[in-house]
Amino acid sequence: MQILSQQVLGYLDRASWIRKMFETGAAMKAEFGADAVFDFSLGNPDLPPPAAVCDGLKELCFAATKPYAFGYMPNAGYPWAREALAAHVSVEQKISLTSDNIVVTCGAAGGLNAIFRAVLDAGDEVLGLAPYFVEYGFYVENHGGVFKTAKTQPLTFELDLAAIEEALTPDTRVVLVNSPNNPTGQVYSEEEIKSLAALLTRKSEVYGRPIFLVADEPYRFLVYDAAVAPPVLSLYPYSLVASSFSKNLSLAGERVGYVAVSPLLPERAELVNGLILTNRILGFVNAPAIGQALMTRALGSQVDLEVYARRRAALTEVLTAAGYVFTPPKGAFYFFPQVPGDGDDVAFVRRLQEEKILAVPGVGFGYPGYFRLAFCTDESVIRRAAEGFGRAARG
Amino acid sequence: MQILSQQVLGYLDRASWIRKMFETGAAMKAEFGADAVFDFSLGNPDLPPPAAVCDGLKELCFAATKPYAFGYMPNAGYPWAREALAAHVSVEQKISLTSDNIVVTCGAAGGLNAIFRAVLDAGDEVLGLAPYFVEYGFYVENHGGVFKTAKTQPLTFELDLAAIEEALTPDTRVVLVNSPNNPTGQVYSEEEIKSLAALLTRKSEVYGRPIFLVADEPYRFLVYDAAVAPPVLSLYPYSLVASSFSKNLSLAGERVGYVAVSPLLPERAELVNGLILTNRILGFVNAPAIGQALMTRALGSQVDLEVYARRRAALTEVLTAAGYVFTPPKGAFYFFPQVPGDGDDVAFVRRLQEEKILAVPGVGFGYPGYFRLAFCTDESVIRRAAEGFGRAARG
Repeated sequence: MQILSQQVLGYLDRASWIRKMFETGAAMKAEFGADAVFDFSLGNPDLPPPAAVCDGLKELCFAATKPYAFGYMPNAGYPWAREALAAHVSVEQKISLTSDNIVVTCGAAGGLNAIFRAVLDAGDEVLGLAPYFVEYGFYVENHGGVFKTAKTQPLTFELDLAAIEEALTPDTRVVLVNSPNNPTGQVYSEEEIKSLAALLTRKSEVYGRPIFLVADEPYRFLVYDAAVAPPVLSLYPYSLVASSFSKNLSLAGERVGYVAVSPLLPERAELVNGLILTNRILGFVNAPAIGQALMTRALGSQVDLEVYARRRAALTEVLTAAGYVFTPPKGAFYFFPQVPGDGDDVAFVRRLQEEKILAVPGVGFGYPGYFRLAFCTDESVIRRAAEGFGRAARG
Repeated sequence: MQILSQQVLGYLDRASWIRKMFETGAAMKAEFGADAVFDFSLGNPDLPPPAAVCDGLKELCFAATKPYAFGYMPNAGYPWAREALAAHVSVEQKISLTSDNIVVTCGAAGGLNAIFRAVLDAGDEVLGLAPYFVEYGFYVENHGGVFKTAKTQPLTFELDLAAIEEALTPDTRVVLVNSPNNPTGQVYSEEEIKSLAALLTRKSEVYGRPIFLVADEPYRFLVYDAAVAPPVLSLYPYSLVASSFSKNLSLAGERVGYVAVSPLLPERAELVNGLILTNRILGFVNAPAIGQALMTRALGSQVDLEVYARRRAALTEVLTAAGYVFTPPKGAFYFFPQVPGDGDDVAFVRRLQEEKILAVPGVGFGYPGYFRLAFCTDESVIRRAAEGFGRAARG
């Protein structure tokens, strides 16, 4: 008896091989011990939350004995949380936002779903840039949209404006960018974003309705060598940012993030009303109360970035020594090297497993021929994996 | 320039008159002071969380300095949270569940959305029983479903099996019940649920696919005069329960709840896999980490039910003295009396506002001619509102 919807049944079938790969990893840890396995497969931040999170919990103990301590609040979030976020985002995006520009959400994933529910009519298209976070396709299809992709440049993963222009159609409602990028670690330059904005402005006029630029930015805080993630909200009027505190506050499981709408967007009041509604009716209702309180308390502090910088240096060394071809990431905690030899990324990830190294094949991000390494793992693990990386590179 | 989807734009338009009513209430509080307004409009639990929530926060302070303290966990929830819930639900539902039957969700609202996303194909129908929580319609339409309703009996709000049978079609995928009920406070008897189960079994055979019975049960803990909410999961194989800890632990803002699947459901493993997937891809990813920890710690404790029982007695007295016609609630914290006179519920709610009493018209629950009073408010407020209720009843 079929009990799941056709679409969800299809998702489960499609997802099964990548899940099998994760299960293989779990089985390896069970067999050889977690310490003997070099796990670069998961982007689950391993640094403890900053001290402000712990302090915030202490303060909440006192609040917890009062009525409404953790009761419903406005669906857009606590007014003080929205205000703190508006100030924070104003600095990041180099443009003045008020709390009216902000909806607190259940992480960036919740924010993206609220956005797509609000703006997509059936058949509207969302254009993502490959390689991309594989969940994007689900987020779009959840709301009757069609997910299309344009590839970024090989190896450098810079924007390919010609490919984007070719992929735009009268049905394109949203172009979705993710910078610093998962899985490549690349950061689009201000010049690239400006060129994209000019293209979208032009095409919006041609098609007679605005194309939204949605920037998924949970890694904005994490850049290397003085790289700068440009301020999308000040560079294009029909822009929104979705972000979270999963990475910079190591609060991934508590699900707290936000959507910020550009103050340049003429219909921003209507859009924010729509987002507050969709955030509610999708069942989020509001971002978690405790997460909002901790986020507000900890805003401005973050995990120790030096740790990530050292790991990046170590992995650059290890991969270079082993002869891999790659562009060092400008941000986030991922490498996306080319697969050596015949470029079969699934086979190569299996080869790495023989070395007890866990990675994710590029095909999982819509970009075969590469593989993703997440360095949410101790520097010593990176160093100890060097020999395995070397042997796998040689065949 | 239209920037919201057609459907969401329609939602905002439709919602506007009820929002206006709430705004009137807020304006009244600003004008006369919150103490001078008798607010029976909101089901936002006003009792403080039980002590276990505060204790749980203290324990989390220590955990918060460790890696992965609040990181990603399996999308279904922490294994220990699922196990604790399985034990808890087994007692409530009089049937043995394992953690495999449980998905921890962002409240019942998140759970219902995960269910509908998992089982509805485009055009599938969900049958709700009026009066009903108005958000149900959104939850169904979010996922391409069609929300239909059958009325329960006037005044008693008992199931009307004939009305339900008439509303079932080959496209009916889910019948959604909510007991103890918002807005009526009624609790369906075991006999009613058994009759419904027999009807659904018969109709599932006729139509050639199972009709799910989904029970939304956040008020199960709150019953009066020894009323008992029957164990749905043990009475019908294709049944699911969605629930939350918003009311019994006063954690409405933290968004923690669960979906439990009947152990009698033959394809339960597939259904649970589907729910874990939809919970993830809708952007919940997982229920909030801190909420899961507090819920597990506090499971079994609850807010002081005696307070609600005393308020119910007080409001019964006040409404009876004023001559209202109503069935006293068997559970939850709502009364749903008949509107006196011509039965115009919107006009009557406006009349109550003249007495500084805030209520919600029945039309907001798909059941005109009645009005809802939530007693999430101090007993003294109920007593002080007595005169106003009396004057309004007289015209």
